[in-house]
Amino acid sequence: MRLDVFFTPDELAATDIREHVAIVVDVLRATSVIAQAIASGAKVIYPADTTEEAVRLGQNLDRAELILCGERGGIRIEGFDLGNSPLEFTPDTVGGRTLVMNTTNGTPALVAASTAARTLSASFLNLGAVAKAVAREQAVSIICAGRERRFALEDAVCAGMLIERLQKGRKSGPLNDAAAAALVLAKRYEGDLDAMMRTTAAGRQLMEIGHDHDVVYCAGLDQLDVVPRLEDRRITA
Amino acid sequence: MRLDVFFTPDELAATDIREHVAIVVDVLRATSVIAQAIASGAKVIYPADTTEEAVRLGQNLDRAELILCGERGGIRIEGFDLGNSPLEFTPDTVGGRTLVMNTTNGTPALVAASTAARTLSASFLNLGAVAKAVAREQAVSIICAGRERRFALEDAVCAGMLIERLQKGRKSGPLNDAAAAALVLAKRYEGDLDAMMRTTAAGRQLMEIGHDHDVVYCAGLDQLDVVPRLEDRRITA
Repeated sequence: MRLDVFFTPDELAATDIREHVAIVVDVLRATSVIAQAIASGAKVIYPADTTEEAVRLGQNLDRAELILCGERGGIRIEGFDLGNSPLEFTPDTVGGRTLVMNTTNGTPALVAASTAARTLSASFLNLGAVAKAVAREQAVSIICAGRERRFALEDAVCAGMLIERLQKGRKSGPLNDAAAAALVLAKRYEGDLDAMMRTTAAGRQLMEIGHDHDVVYCAGLDQLDVVPRLEDRRITA
Repeated sequence: MRLDVFFTPDELAATDIREHVAIVVDVLRATSVIAQAIASGAKVIYPADTTEEAVRLGQNLDRAELILCGERGGIRIEGFDLGNSPLEFTPDTVGGRTLVMNTTNGTPALVAASTAARTLSASFLNLGAVAKAVAREQAVSIICAGRERRFALEDAVCAGMLIERLQKGRKSGPLNDAAAAALVLAKRYEGDLDAMMRTTAAGRQLMEIGHDHDVVYCAGLDQLDVVPRLEDRRITA
């Protein structure tokens, strides 16, 4: 299996991933929220590139079924139903509903990765489920959302741990430079994800706005057995 | 000292480094060549963003003193005097001369970093000299050239080793996520730079075109006591 990591969506530019499986990682918090929402029974999630696009998408959907969710600066977008805390996405709030989601880093990354043959969404919460789903693929590209177009440590560690799972018990294929680095970072931090996430730029910002519980929750490994898949700009189970 | 690392020039976009010292790293091979050229007595190096700009810059300079140098795909640009192998940049070829240089990743990174208060060029060859030169600064941003807009492992390791030198014997200041990751990568690979460089995308490409000697040479730590500085788009000692 060929394994490539891209630390930001910008690194993906001009790379042809049409024959790859793409896995998008935005641990804090978009892909953690997506795993949680799907596990809580959300019917479909539309990732929107911008807030304006989210509102426009929402106007074409049944308002009774619709949940608008997303954040700017970590805070719920004004007028939206939910923010971007996985703990908000319970069966009560999202079960059977249609979600339109816009976040600073995660949803643009999903949109960028949508040129792949198959595009999945991964986080620590559903790492094992995603690893199992792609175990027989020939080429996997892991696209980290990063943070404001820059490297985010928690995404890189998650990418590295995904590679560890994919390499387990089989002959290793080629890795690009970022995949090799992600593996080193995974080995360094996998023993204490919670502590690592408290030191990163995204983790610190969440703690500053009182979202410590999100940092703890998103560090939970293999809590959810879901493989969210993006197809025709819709994410479903 | 505040220490930030950017794994590609794209990550630097929209970051205000006007009050920082910027250090550009392109181990294979632009910043290694720059260190070597300055150590060999080159009077000035003009980094050009494109081949066309290099030719245009050259037309305004004294042809007798001028050396055009650079590469595409690792190979000397047609019509240019030198390629991008540090071993070509001897006192005989470049001593007292004016160089105009264009390379795929390194020179665009230098141009991107030129908004800083002070912009220096570092490689393994002159790591110690650069670390010494910025030891008393308040904020240092290390900009990795990367490779075709993507993460390059050897640049990240070099950035991490520069941080180790800068932290030695003083209270550590804040690190961004990429700086924390670069430190982990430095600790993993600093014991055998040569072996690491043979596994990276840039190293493998150089070996494929018969430039193994460049990979070995550029892995040489603290060989040159020079601090190339970019000012008004000119690099001098």
